[in-house]
Amino acid sequence: MDAEAQALLQALLRRTRIASLATLRGGAPNVSMVLYLPEDDFTAFHIRVSRLAWHTQDMQDDARVALSIQETDAPSRDPQQLARLTLRGEATRLTEEGAQFERLKAAWLARYPDAGVTFELPDFSFWRIAPREARFVAGFARTFNLAPEGLVEVAKTRAAPAT
Amino acid sequence: MDAEAQALLQALLRRTRIASLATLRGGAPNVSMVLYLPEDDFTAFHIRVSRLAWHTQDMQDDARVALSIQETDAPSRDPQQLARLTLRGEATRLTEEGAQFERLKAAWLARYPDAGVTFELPDFSFWRIAPREARFVAGFARTFNLAPEGLVEVAKTRAAPAT
Repeated sequence: MDAEAQALLQALLRRTRIASLATLRGGAPNVSMVLYLPEDDFTAFHIRVSRLAWHTQDMQDDARVALSIQETDAPSRDPQQLARLTLRGEATRLTEEGAQFERLKAAWLARYPDAGVTFELPDFSFWRIAPREARFVAGFARTFNLAPEGLVEVAKTRAAPAT
Repeated sequence: MDAEAQALLQALLRRTRIASLATLRGGAPNVSMVLYLPEDDFTAFHIRVSRLAWHTQDMQDDARVALSIQETDAPSRDPQQLARLTLRGEATRLTEEGAQFERLKAAWLARYPDAGVTFELPDFSFWRIAPREARFVAGFARTFNLAPEGLVEVAKTRAAPAT
């Protein structure tokens, strides 16, 4: 993957605020919107979900998930050219206490200032998604496959300037 | 579902230009971005995909899919409050000829003026997704389940004014 695509991918993963989570529901696909927080080195992507939601029930039954992070659409854009990443891997539920939880909570609230209510309700928890493989589409017919180590390399590239 | 939620859902489905398609890949979830065109009455949602793409290979192996259509994020929004719909159903590949194809092609190009190239390349085709069930999240903790008939009702509601 060239440096331009790496910078594009890094910006995509750090700036985007919503993602699509695919899970298995009764053996068939399910997909829904989630908010997410990447680890700085892209070794994991955290989500915060309610056990009342279908996707959480799905992950409790089968840990295999996929996550798609897509560039935000805008009227000026050709939507075929929007950058998007698919991650596939496993999701693990984290405990709602301890140093890791406190670190995630602080980072989550910095990213999502309106999400305080999810720390008051008893049905929410963090889940950690560890990617096994990834596929980056930098635009129409510009596709790159990445191993987890490839994502870590992307995390290290110099960040693109804010737009 | 109240009239306000119906109007919100109709606007979401008619105005949004990208969706997330979940498929089964080796029995595990996959998810990627697609462009989509709803039937006027919301009885079907069409996508146009390349057989070189993973999701197309997945649908050839197993027709079960899910589609998520999400309100476009913006800095002024609380992303937890974005409206989003999940559809679950089956996908069927359509032929690239005949009156139905010509109608879809015209509607597709009206919606996606830059998509002409997909009608020149031999690897693209339309697929039809027929929803079996749907789940609409109108915002944080505002969730509605819909049968296919419920979607048809939404299609008939008076359209919300353009924003």
